[in-house]
Amino acid sequence: MTGYTAPVKDMQFILHDVFGISGFDIPGYADLDRAFTGAVLEEAGKVASAILAPLNPIGDRQGCVLENGTVRTPDGFKAAFETMKQGGWTALDCDPDYGGQGLPYLINCAVGEIFVSANMALNMYQGLTHGAVSAIHTHGTEAQKAQYLPKMIACDWTGTMNLTEPHCGTDLGLLRTKAEPQEEGSYLITGQKIFISAGDHDLAENIIHLVLARAPGGGEGTKGISLFIVPKFLVNDDGSVGARNGISTGKIEEKMGIHGNATCVLNYDGAKGWLLGDLHKGMRAMFTMMNEARLGVGLQGYAVAAAAYQNAAAYAKDRLQGRAMTGAENPQGAADPLIVHPDIRRMLMDQKSFVEGARALTFWGASLIDRAHRNSDAEADGLIGLLTPVIKGFQTDKGFESTVGAQQVFGGHGYIEEQGMSQFVRDARIAMIYEGANGVQALDLVGRKLAADGGNHVMAFFDLVKAECRAHDGDERMKPFADALTTASKQLQAAAMYFMQNGVKNPNAALAGSTDFLHLAGHVCLGLMWTKMAGAAFAALDAGAADQEYLDAKIATGRYYMARQLPACATHLARIESGADPVMALTAEAF
Amino acid sequence: MTGYTAPVKDMQFILHDVFGISGFDIPGYADLDRAFTGAVLEEAGKVASAILAPLNPIGDRQGCVLENGTVRTPDGFKAAFETMKQGGWTALDCDPDYGGQGLPYLINCAVGEIFVSANMALNMYQGLTHGAVSAIHTHGTEAQKAQYLPKMIACDWTGTMNLTEPHCGTDLGLLRTKAEPQEEGSYLITGQKIFISAGDHDLAENIIHLVLARAPGGGEGTKGISLFIVPKFLVNDDGSVGARNGISTGKIEEKMGIHGNATCVLNYDGAKGWLLGDLHKGMRAMFTMMNEARLGVGLQGYAVAAAAYQNAAAYAKDRLQGRAMTGAENPQGAADPLIVHPDIRRMLMDQKSFVEGARALTFWGASLIDRAHRNSDAEADGLIGLLTPVIKGFQTDKGFESTVGAQQVFGGHGYIEEQGMSQFVRDARIAMIYEGANGVQALDLVGRKLAADGGNHVMAFFDLVKAECRAHDGDERMKPFADALTTASKQLQAAAMYFMQNGVKNPNAALAGSTDFLHLAGHVCLGLMWTKMAGAAFAALDAGAADQEYLDAKIATGRYYMARQLPACATHLARIESGADPVMALTAEAF
Repeated sequence: MTGYTAPVKDMQFILHDVFGISGFDIPGYADLDRAFTGAVLEEAGKVASAILAPLNPIGDRQGCVLENGTVRTPDGFKAAFETMKQGGWTALDCDPDYGGQGLPYLINCAVGEIFVSANMALNMYQGLTHGAVSAIHTHGTEAQKAQYLPKMIACDWTGTMNLTEPHCGTDLGLLRTKAEPQEEGSYLITGQKIFISAGDHDLAENIIHLVLARAPGGGEGTKGISLFIVPKFLVNDDGSVGARNGISTGKIEEKMGIHGNATCVLNYDGAKGWLLGDLHKGMRAMFTMMNEARLGVGLQGYAVAAAAYQNAAAYAKDRLQGRAMTGAENPQGAADPLIVHPDIRRMLMDQKSFVEGARALTFWGASLIDRAHRNSDAEADGLIGLLTPVIKGFQTDKGFESTVGAQQVFGGHGYIEEQGMSQFVRDARIAMIYEGANGVQALDLVGRKLAADGGNHVMAFFDLVKAECRAHDGDERMKPFADALTTASKQLQAAAMYFMQNGVKNPNAALAGSTDFLHLAGHVCLGLMWTKMAGAAFAALDAGAADQEYLDAKIATGRYYMARQLPACATHLARIESGADPVMALTAEAF
Repeated sequence: MTGYTAPVKDMQFILHDVFGISGFDIPGYADLDRAFTGAVLEEAGKVASAILAPLNPIGDRQGCVLENGTVRTPDGFKAAFETMKQGGWTALDCDPDYGGQGLPYLINCAVGEIFVSANMALNMYQGLTHGAVSAIHTHGTEAQKAQYLPKMIACDWTGTMNLTEPHCGTDLGLLRTKAEPQEEGSYLITGQKIFISAGDHDLAENIIHLVLARAPGGGEGTKGISLFIVPKFLVNDDGSVGARNGISTGKIEEKMGIHGNATCVLNYDGAKGWLLGDLHKGMRAMFTMMNEARLGVGLQGYAVAAAAYQNAAAYAKDRLQGRAMTGAENPQGAADPLIVHPDIRRMLMDQKSFVEGARALTFWGASLIDRAHRNSDAEADGLIGLLTPVIKGFQTDKGFESTVGAQQVFGGHGYIEEQGMSQFVRDARIAMIYEGANGVQALDLVGRKLAADGGNHVMAFFDLVKAECRAHDGDERMKPFADALTTASKQLQAAAMYFMQNGVKNPNAALAGSTDFLHLAGHVCLGLMWTKMAGAAFAALDAGAADQEYLDAKIATGRYYMARQLPACATHLARIESGADPVMALTAEAF
C-alpha cells in the first residue's frame, strides 16, 4: 500500500525562497505570502493524504463500469469529489463573478500537484472541467457564461474536451463530426468521439461537452472546424437540468492505467449544441487553452513521479537487504537497509533531483501564465509558449522514467499490483500521450515556437540563463552550477543553430532532432531551476536559516542534477548534429 | 490486435553471414548449416504465429486462477503447450541420453526468441523447466537424472526455481526455509517461498521444484544453504506419479504483466525433498546455471521489443495522420502514413537498431556458452561471464524503453489494452527485475566480473574490439563504424580505469557508476555487433548477393546505431567520472 504526504516545505521553499512570489508585480500575488500559501497547501495536503490517496488503489482496481448506459465510478469517488467541491478546491483560480476565488493560477497548480500525486484519475474530473471553464470564460457569450460557469466552477456540472475521432487524433483536419444549423440558432451534432476523459460518470448532475465539429461552409481541413457546447442533459431556462440530449456512451475503454477515470466513446446522434466562439474558428478557440492544459499534463508527469519517489524512498529506508560495501551500517540488524547501496541512491537521486527541478519549472511556468493573463504581458506569453512543449514533453517522459525507477527500487515487490508502484507507472504512461503526444510537442517546439516572433522568445530565454549565471559571479560555491548551466545552454544554442543552418534546406534535418532538442531544452530548464534553487539555499544559509539540513540536502541534490543529468545534453546535441540522414535512410518497406 | 512474424531472414543473416556458425570448431556446429537452421526457424515461426501469438492477449486478459487449491491456466494454454511438446521444441539442446535432441544451445536461443516474442508468459513454463533440467543434469546423481530428466525434457513434468522468501530476494543469506534430514536420506522442507514463476499450473502432471533451504550444520549466511529437489507429487519407484507432497499454493500474485504465467506463493509444510548436489553448497549449484538463465532474460528483453517493434512499424505504415513537411507522399489519400514523419522514424530506428543489435549479441553470447560447455573453453567461459550481466541488464532496460517507444507510435491507441501494445510494455517490465534486478547485474559486473581473473576477460574483450576495427582498415565504407566503435571502446576503458584508480580507496566510487558502466558496456557491445553486421553486409554486397535492399537497410540501420546511440557513451562516462560524492551526499533522513 502506497502513502502520500504533501511536500509543503519544498513548495514553500520554491514559492518564497527561490521566486519570492509575493513580490511579483502580478495582480493578486501580493496576497500570496508564506503564511497564506502554507495554510492552503497544508489543507490541500490533508485532503490528499486522508481522502484522495487511499482511494487511488481502489480506483485502479475497480475502474469505471458502464451499466445500462450509465457510468459508475469507483467506490468512494463521489464522496471524495463532494469533499473537493465543498472545500472550494475546484474554484481556486476561477472568476469571482461566477463563484470562483480569483486566486492566481500558480496556486491552483501547486494544489494540483498535491491532488494529482494523491489520485491522478480522480483529479482529472475537475481538471478537465477547469479547462472547459477556461474555454467558456474566454470565448462564451455573456449568456453562456451565466448559464454554465457557476455550475461548472462549483463542479456541480463537469466538463470535457471532445477532439479525437477513430481515424484522427493529432490530425484534426480529418475530423468528420457534423454540426447542422437549426433555425433557432442551435446545431445538431452527429458523429463519434473517442478517448473522452471523464466523458461520462456519476459525480455530477450534468456534463458539459465541448465538441469540435464541422459546420457547413467552412471548407476542408482544420479551417472548417467549430467548437460547440453540447450538454449531456439540456438545460432549462431556469438553469435546472432538463431532458437527456442525444449523446450516448458507446463504451468505456479498458486502458493501461488511470482506471478511475472513465475514458469514453461518445456517440452524438443529432445532439443539440451551441456554437462557442466564432464559426469555423474552433481550432483557434481550442488553442487558447493549450498552454494551460499542456502545463497541467507536464505537472502530472512529475506529480506522479513525486508520489512514486516518496514511496521508493520509504521502502529503501525500511527494507533490509545486503550490506554496505564500506562496512555494515545496521550491524544489529540482519542486514542494512537498501538505501546504503550506491545504485539504490543513484535511482533515488535521479528521481528526487528530477521531481524538485520539475516542480520549480512548473511553478515558474504557472507564474508566467499568470503574468501573461493578468498583466497582458506579451513577453511572458511568448516565453511560456516556448516553454510549454518542453514542460509537457520533457516532464512526462522523465516523469515516467522516474516512476519506473521508483518501481525498480522495490525489486520483485514493485511488479506486484498490491504494492501500488505498478499503478504509478501505468498512470504516468498516459501523460506522454494525451494532450498532444510528446512527438507533437517536439514538433511544436522546433517547428513553431523556436522561430516564433523572429526567435525573440528563445533569445530571451538564453538571456535569462546568462543573467542567472552572471548573478553568481565570484561565488565559488555556485561555480559548479553556473559552469554546468553555461555549458548546457551553449549546447542548446548550438542545436538551435544547427536547425537554422540546415532546416531551411531540409526541414527533416530539424525534425529528426526535435525530440532530442526538447530533452536538451528540458535539461537546460532544470539546470536553470537548480541554479536558482542552490543560489536561494546558499542565501538562506548565509542568512542563518534554521533548517540547515533541508538546505544542505537541497544544494546536494542540485549538485547531483548538474553532475549527473546535464551531461546528457552532449549526447542530445550529438544526435541532433548527426542530421536527418541516419533517421530517414530507409524506405518504408525496409521497416 | 497484435500480430507476429518470425524474423527468420535476420536470424539467418546473423548466424551465417555475420558469424558463419557452421564453421565454428564447437561440437555440433558443423551441422548448423543455412538450410538446417532455416528449416528449424521457419517451423518455429509457424508455431509462434499460428498458435502462440494469438493466445498472448488471451493469457493477459484471463490470467491464471487459483480455485480450490488448483491453478488453472488461460484457455488454450494447455493445447499450445502440448503442441510445443509434441514438436520437440522443449528438448532442442537437451542431452540425447535423456530424450533430448542434443543441438547447440544457440539454436535453443534463436527458437526461444521466436517463442518469447509470440508469447512470453507461456514460454516461461518451458524456459524454467529448461533451467531446472540443467541444474539436475549438472548436479544430480545418476539415479536423480534417470528419475527426472526424461519426463522434464519432454515437459511432461515442468520445473521451477525457489529462491525468494518474503523478507529476502537478492540477499539470500537471510533465507529461513528449513530442511530437516530424515533417516532414509530425504529431507523435510518447511518454509514459504514467493514469486515462484510457473509455481503451479495445469499444464503438466507433475512439477519439480528446486528449493533453496537451510539444513542443519551449515552455518549462517549463504554458506549454509543447500538445494533440494521437491516434487509437487511424490514419484513412485516405477516412475509414475504418486501422492501429493506437502506443498500448497498460497496464492497467485496479481502482477503488472505476464499474467499467463502463474507467479505463486508456495507453502512448504514438511514437504519431502532430496538434496541436489553437495550439502551446504546450494548457492554454488544455483550459480552454475546463472549465465544461461540471465542470458535467457536478456533475450526476453529484446524479444518482446522485437514483437512490439513489428507492430509499431506496421501501424506507422498503415495509419494516415498529417502530411510530410517535405511534400505529400500519399497525395491521393486523406493524409500521409505516420512513417513519413521524422520523429516517428526516429522511434522506429531506435527500436530496430536496438533489436537487431541485441539479437546478434545474444546469439554470440549463446555461442560462447556452447564453446565454454562443449569445448571446456575457459576463455569463452570468462568472456560470457563478463558479458552476461551486460546482456541481462542492458538488453532488458533498453528492451523496455524500446517497447515503450513502440507503444508511443500508436498514440492514444497504444494506451488501450485492446491494441495489445500495453501488454508488451507490462510484460517487458519484469525482465528488468527478475533473475537479479538490473542494479544487481551492474554490481556483479563492476564488483566481480571486471576484476575476475586479474582483468584478463575484460582485456580480451577490448582486444576483440580492437581486432574488429583493425579488420576493416582501409575500407572507407567501414570508417564510420570503426571510428565510432573505437571512441566508445576508449570511453569504456577510461571508465574501467576510473574504477581501478578510485574504487580501491572508496568502493562507492565504483558502485555509484555501476549502472552507467553497464550501459556504456552495452553500447560498446552493440557497436561491436553493428560493425560486424555492416562488415558482413558489405561483403555480401561485394559478392553480388541478391537481396540488396535488405543489406542496404542493414547497413543504414547500423549507421543509425553508431550515429545516434553510441554518443550516449560520453554521457555515461561523465556520470561515472563524477564519482561517488553526488550520489552519496545526502543522509538517509534527507530522502
